[in-house]
Amino acid sequence: MAKPAIFDFISPLDYRYYGSIPEIKDYLSESSFIVYLGKFEASLAKCLARRKLCPDSVAAEIEKASRAVSAEEVYEEEERIRHNIRALANTIRKKVSDEAKPYVHLSATSHDAICSADAARFRDFANKSLIKVLLSLESTLIKIAMQEKATLQIGRTHGQHAEPITFGFAVAQYVSRLGKRILLIQKTANDLRGKLAGAVGAYNAPSLIIKDSEAFEEEVLAELGIKPSPISTQVVEAEYMADFVHAVISCFGVLANISDDMRHLQRSEISEIREQFGNDQVGSSTMPHKMNPINFENVKSMWKEFMPRMSTLYLDQISEHQRDLTNSASSRFVPEILAALYLSAARLDKTLSKIEVNSSALKKNFDSGKDMITAEPLYVLLSSKGHPDAHEHARKLSLKSREIKESIYSLAMKDKELEPYMKKLTKEQLEILKSPEKYTGIAEKKTVSICEEWEEKIKDISV
Amino acid sequence: MAKPAIFDFISPLDYRYYGSIPEIKDYLSESSFIVYLGKFEASLAKCLARRKLCPDSVAAEIEKASRAVSAEEVYEEEERIRHNIRALANTIRKKVSDEAKPYVHLSATSHDAICSADAARFRDFANKSLIKVLLSLESTLIKIAMQEKATLQIGRTHGQHAEPITFGFAVAQYVSRLGKRILLIQKTANDLRGKLAGAVGAYNAPSLIIKDSEAFEEEVLAELGIKPSPISTQVVEAEYMADFVHAVISCFGVLANISDDMRHLQRSEISEIREQFGNDQVGSSTMPHKMNPINFENVKSMWKEFMPRMSTLYLDQISEHQRDLTNSASSRFVPEILAALYLSAARLDKTLSKIEVNSSALKKNFDSGKDMITAEPLYVLLSSKGHPDAHEHARKLSLKSREIKESIYSLAMKDKELEPYMKKLTKEQLEILKSPEKYTGIAEKKTVSICEEWEEKIKDISV
Amino acid sequence: MAKPAIFDFISPLDYRYYGSIPEIKDYLSESSFIVYLGKFEASLAKCLARRKLCPDSVAAEIEKASRAVSAEEVYEEEERIRHNIRALANTIRKKVSDEAKPYVHLSATSHDAICSADAARFRDFANKSLIKVLLSLESTLIKIAMQEKATLQIGRTHGQHAEPITFGFAVAQYVSRLGKRILLIQKTANDLRGKLAGAVGAYNAPSLIIKDSEAFEEEVLAELGIKPSPISTQVVEAEYMADFVHAVISCFGVLANISDDMRHLQRSEISEIREQFGNDQVGSSTMPHKMNPINFENVKSMWKEFMPRMSTLYLDQISEHQRDLTNSASSRFVPEILAALYLSAARLDKTLSKIEVNSSALKKNFDSGKDMITAEPLYVLLSSKGHPDAHEHARKLSLKSREIKESIYSLAMKDKELEPYMKKLTKEQLEILKSPEKYTGIAEKKTVSICEEWEEKIKDISV
Amino acid sequence: MAKPAIFDFISPLDYRYYGSIPEIKDYLSESSFIVYLGKFEASLAKCLARRKLCPDSVAAEIEKASRAVSAEEVYEEEERIRHNIRALANTIRKKVSDEAKPYVHLSATSHDAICSADAARFRDFANKSLIKVLLSLESTLIKIAMQEKATLQIGRTHGQHAEPITFGFAVAQYVSRLGKRILLIQKTANDLRGKLAGAVGAYNAPSLIIKDSEAFEEEVLAELGIKPSPISTQVVEAEYMADFVHAVISCFGVLANISDDMRHLQRSEISEIREQFGNDQVGSSTMPHKMNPINFENVKSMWKEFMPRMSTLYLDQISEHQRDLTNSASSRFVPEILAALYLSAARLDKTLSKIEVNSSALKKNFDSGKDMITAEPLYVLLSSKGHPDAHEHARKLSLKSREIKESIYSLAMKDKELEPYMKKLTKEQLEILKSPEKYTGIAEKKTVSICEEWEEKIKDISV
Repeated sequence: MAKPAIFDFISPLDYRYYGSIPEIKDYLSESSFIVYLGKFEASLAKCLARRKLCPDSVAAEIEKASRAVSAEEVYEEEERIRHNIRALANTIRKKVSDEAKPYVHLSATSHDAICSADAARFRDFANKSLIKVLLSLESTLIKIAMQEKATLQIGRTHGQHAEPITFGFAVAQYVSRLGKRILLIQKTANDLRGKLAGAVGAYNAPSLIIKDSEAFEEEVLAELGIKPSPISTQVVEAEYMADFVHAVISCFGVLANISDDMRHLQRSEISEIREQFGNDQVGSSTMPHKMNPINFENVKSMWKEFMPRMSTLYLDQISEHQRDLTNSASSRFVPEILAALYLSAARLDKTLSKIEVNSSALKKNFDSGKDMITAEPLYVLLSSKGHPDAHEHARKLSLKSREIKESIYSLAMKDKELEPYMKKLTKEQLEILKSPEKYTGIAEKKTVSICEEWEEKIKDISV
Repeated sequence: MAKPAIFDFISPLDYRYYGSIPEIKDYLSESSFIVYLGKFEASLAKCLARRKLCPDSVAAEIEKASRAVSAEEVYEEEERIRHNIRALANTIRKKVSDEAKPYVHLSATSHDAICSADAARFRDFANKSLIKVLLSLESTLIKIAMQEKATLQIGRTHGQHAEPITFGFAVAQYVSRLGKRILLIQKTANDLRGKLAGAVGAYNAPSLIIKDSEAFEEEVLAELGIKPSPISTQVVEAEYMADFVHAVISCFGVLANISDDMRHLQRSEISEIREQFGNDQVGSSTMPHKMNPINFENVKSMWKEFMPRMSTLYLDQISEHQRDLTNSASSRFVPEILAALYLSAARLDKTLSKIEVNSSALKKNFDSGKDMITAEPLYVLLSSKGHPDAHEHARKLSLKSREIKESIYSLAMKDKELEPYMKKLTKEQLEILKSPEKYTGIAEKKTVSICEEWEEKIKDISV
Repeated sequence: MAKPAIFDFISPLDYRYYGSIPEIKDYLSESSFIVYLGKFEASLAKCLARRKLCPDSVAAEIEKASRAVSAEEVYEEEERIRHNIRALANTIRKKVSDEAKPYVHLSATSHDAICSADAARFRDFANKSLIKVLLSLESTLIKIAMQEKATLQIGRTHGQHAEPITFGFAVAQYVSRLGKRILLIQKTANDLRGKLAGAVGAYNAPSLIIKDSEAFEEEVLAELGIKPSPISTQVVEAEYMADFVHAVISCFGVLANISDDMRHLQRSEISEIREQFGNDQVGSSTMPHKMNPINFENVKSMWKEFMPRMSTLYLDQISEHQRDLTNSASSRFVPEILAALYLSAARLDKTLSKIEVNSSALKKNFDSGKDMITAEPLYVLLSSKGHPDAHEHARKLSLKSREIKESIYSLAMKDKELEPYMKKLTKEQLEILKSPEKYTGIAEKKTVSICEEWEEKIKDISV
Repeated sequence: MAKPAIFDFISPLDYRYYGSIPEIKDYLSESSFIVYLGKFEASLAKCLARRKLCPDSVAAEIEKASRAVSAEEVYEEEERIRHNIRALANTIRKKVSDEAKPYVHLSATSHDAICSADAARFRDFANKSLIKVLLSLESTLIKIAMQEKATLQIGRTHGQHAEPITFGFAVAQYVSRLGKRILLIQKTANDLRGKLAGAVGAYNAPSLIIKDSEAFEEEVLAELGIKPSPISTQVVEAEYMADFVHAVISCFGVLANISDDMRHLQRSEISEIREQFGNDQVGSSTMPHKMNPINFENVKSMWKEFMPRMSTLYLDQISEHQRDLTNSASSRFVPEILAALYLSAARLDKTLSKIEVNSSALKKNFDSGKDMITAEPLYVLLSSKGHPDAHEHARKLSLKSREIKESIYSLAMKDKELEPYMKKLTKEQLEILKSPEKYTGIAEKKTVSICEEWEEKIKDISV
């Protein structure tokens, strides 16, 4: 196989977004896969020796050889024999003495190695790369939420001004949602399973030479830090991987939602936040003045590309009998999903950590519709004082307010029918009717409690 | 709205597969939704009274009225005012005294009611209907696995005869996979959340009249048996529902895999199992002799229809700011997914509980390829005794065996080169080489341990 | 099967959105399916008689009986024999003389009837219902585009103000896109195919009694207005249906895009358009003042529900050998997709035909950023006059303009370095730099030409 | 950006399946994209010169520079300014004289270049690579179909033996289905569109310096062999690409179906066909005797990976106003889908061109169930002679036949009740009842006509 230059490739993850960073390459590249396969073969030999099925020296030889194997060698041998794991075994065998040769891959089937290597590297990737970047993003969100916990913002539903919140409160929603996704990724990654149960899962081969083949399986996998599938066919039960990828994809959805919100808050007419823009940065090849939310857009776009791939995992739940191989090529693409979330999280973290919050725009937008806000608290307070038709009354006042451009509060104060109820209101309640900016409920308090909760929780994760 | 006859409908779930059974209708129909919305409104009134915000008599009135509301009434009012929850509130208001009117729906926003009602009814559906039928299916699988735990079957990978297992072992795989899906459905259903946090999630309205609005929310939801979302916008955090539906969809995948396996085992050439066929049943409108696996096919087909709908849940994770309404219509279709899994599980359970296992076909199929099976144990045993190139040697013997139609075992016994290694084999090991039907590893033992484990676990679920 | 009331159903299409309107029910309900199956059986009998394989009187009897069959009868018989098309045949047979009985369904297999009935009713639905409502929507779009062809609007890319267009030009984009989708729906609907090729597609049964079974097939299907699949298994080639549903789904995407645009233009801060709001209409159960774009939101939400279902069609392309039945249940849901597009198109048409365009908001939004617009024409004009680095120069002027709040035009006019180039500009070109509202390119002209083109084209469709 | 070795990459398309073959790289790699962008810039300059907007020598300079640009240079410049097309323009500018600099990219916006380059390279890829390999596969299918046009095979529905066909007839189905997909790919590829309509589609910039900007657009695109979008925003109407990818994905579905059928026909119990197996090829790392249908499995698996990606295209139909950029990253992955179909088609072609058809297995399988086949022709013939209840009669005979192991034919001949009808049958009809292998309808004739039709049609495509 020729070695094309980077731009001769066709996957944007390879030529554009990835850049071969170690955080990804060490777990998700084909080289890393070969490394983890080697680790499996080394563990197997080690445990065979422990059971006196081969000499310790043989295990040591195999371990060393397994570590020395390169992807290039394996692919060359595969070219010849058309079977990738047998190619791996042969490559290791070439590097050991004749005495050691028989014990390479002994009693294992290809997918013992493949399933176990994938489980181990994805779990490592989650713990050592993915969760780290997600935690950094979580910290950034907490920081913004706390900084803006009291920054008044008009809450928006249906794209329409609704009731007041604070900008920190809006961000706190994401602190909570992202936090829980991180926990789920961690949980499902740490529950990925391997196997050493043979070609049809019944431990046919291992049982030939080992009495307690289930215990042996546990032992070999423990070397990789993973546990066995409760029962296997040729492959591990499919749901461990499906649950993990669901955690990843649904986490991606949270990132996409953050990005969409931020994009819209950056709309020219809203301008409440803005992506930082470099001095040399060009916004458009033709409109020199443009400053676009390209990073938020990129995250949303990556989500569009990767979200649908969950279907492939569901399709791969179905495998005929003790397995058909129609999940082989498709499962090779799972690392792409993981890399994409990593890259998008890193990008979003970097972008958010530098966003500019425009407080005058926040105030201007709030003020533009603040007169209408009074409709809800007015209706609720009137009802609580026994007005039998407060919602309808408030609705009509709001139409009138719109028409004659007078505030609902002012109209309500003049409204004879409302007088008996208005009199019963406390000073504090009247104050809210008069000053809608005070009608933020417990937005600030909630922001703080959510952020504090997650600051604690992520400490546990980091440890 | 006119009331069309059942066959004037367009959803197969309504006119064909559903049949209006109470197990589904009581939780997933539009009527049931109105019932649960009524429960929410009743709980709210009850808790308002508990806080002395309205008299007990008012709460009692509202509770009674909420229970009396019918879907027809609500839809009629909605026709007029174009808002379904305000229509519900109005309908309740019509049924209570003027004194009680102001307290109907007081401080709540529509999606306080909707999110909470959906969480409560889906959790109830899971616990009272769905998990029951899944447990029944699980029991059926356990029964088959235990009955067939020692029934020799050729394991198949790539559709090719591989190594021996037992039919019970093949089924035990599904015992384990389905069991874990049931646990996940239970867990995620019981973690569905409600809310009473107002239009933008900051408890703006409730805080006007209640000091501890978060505690109040907990109290109201406790009446429905659910907990609040840690933080809300207008709606509950989207991931609770996404996790639940992922559990449902991935469970569906297990059912589809079972069905596919059974379909293929019923192929004319394999005939190891068969769906029971009624005396009056017709297999084909033109081929009077056909006996088709139509129930297995139906389950697979339903999975094809419903699996892609997970994407809708992922799409609905994204909602702008404090919410846009583009998840409103789509979320109304979630009950269909739940109903479909229920129906498919019930169908599969019924079908499996009557399958006929054809032991002579199992034997015939096994025997047809049994000579080749020896290749694997021969290679493993030779290696374990130090043969440096056993895999290649066994591969060549298998080619020769195919060519000259002599068993691998017989060829190996005559092979001079192998003699030194063969001599080292135990009697038991030689026996396996000679009698491939003994080469089932720990299939039977594993079947029993998996089944016993899940028999225990489902007892806990049932309790 | 009991007949539940409408709200005991679980499909929103049945209990909420559909309302049993004839435009849908007559083609997409289960009753309509039975009607079309009856038409197939009648055509078959008619053509048998034409070939003298049965008397004309027998064909007449069967035709009459086929028309009289009700869904209820068929389902009752199916309950007994577990086969829906044999049930249909039996139901017809019960209504005819003993002489006619043998000729009912003679030589046909179930899926001859099913495939042909589905093709015929979907084609009729497309031509008689769906395309009509889509053409009405197209006319509404054309009307808006022409009305607003000269209404200045700021073009938006990345949510940021970009260059000027007209609102009519923005709408014309949809005139073109929707128009082409209508043509594709028409084309693919009219190319749906039927079959009368027997259980495995080789005309085994028909060839027993008819010499030219392919000609016979054409003849029978011509009665239903459709053509045969070039070659069949038990079913028609799957791609005809996949192409048709792709046309439908991609048309749905255009509607979703329109809806999204309109939702955003209705944002409080933008307010360029607004859904009409009824006098009695309630916007929120708690915020009496809200006026939400609920219809645009509904269309987007329906798209989210139905778009992923295209995957089911792709899954159903795969059918084993001469067919497995795993596409049977799933294909029953195709009518839902068609109904959903119909309903969304009707809703969007109604909503758009009453939108209010707010010209003062359009102007206000345009003016707010108009100073920056000059950057692009300045760069282009300077370049065209030979300035070697105009893009960078314009970019810097735009940064300065932002900083010192002076228009780019004014800065450019004072810029010594630019003087030699500015002097070469025509009066018209300078005018554009000064008055950005004139920088609309050919927006108006293009709007007119697109609208006129499609007004012509839809005439041809309507005919 | 560092240049990692091939196995440091994460996309299987890059490190495993692709192998950098020119048929893919020349159109789908990032390098190729830069080449096509350069072609666009060259065409633009050429047409500017033609309109006398710049000297011919300037256009020649730009053309030469555009051809000399490398991906590396562009990425380096993008690193600095964060905008890929401006980076391209700058890179070209660096290579030309000061006089030429202003005319590089003049009047164009980034997506004028991007949309046009993608349209041109995908169309070229379709015509010069993809369709070629698909036509080769089509020829292989035709060859097999013609070779096996008379090879008796039992038709299978529901995995059950149904009625007889020929193996060639089964393959002819794919000749027809694949043929039509090729035509659709060709049609939609040749209808991909470009644009030169500026940042918001209204030709704002080009109209500044060119009177007939639509004609100018046509001219520039004609140089690339493509036509303009009828109307654009910042981007071309999304449906051209969606239709093209639908053609590609639905073609992939046909390949997956072929592969599934072949896999199943290779099942150990069926063995009617077999993938060729190399002498050195290893089937399993542990089962030396295995010969697996790995190529058919691979094609199915690739389809599982790529089919769901159609959803991304549907998601990308939605772009806000004159465009948001959330389709930018996602659209970069479209080349992967195209490459995957190419690779799978090539693999399937190679595999099918060497399959071994096992005629003795075909005969054995047919014979095993041939007695039951008579049920259908018996029912049809009895009905055609006026038997009033032939289907039910035949069904019962088939049950009896199964029970007492006597052929249906023999039972029918002895059946007194049937005698009057049997007597009316022609000799030929009786012969079919007696010899089910003759009951193949027009399978052979149809095979020939389908193959001849497509042999003609593909000649036209090739030209």
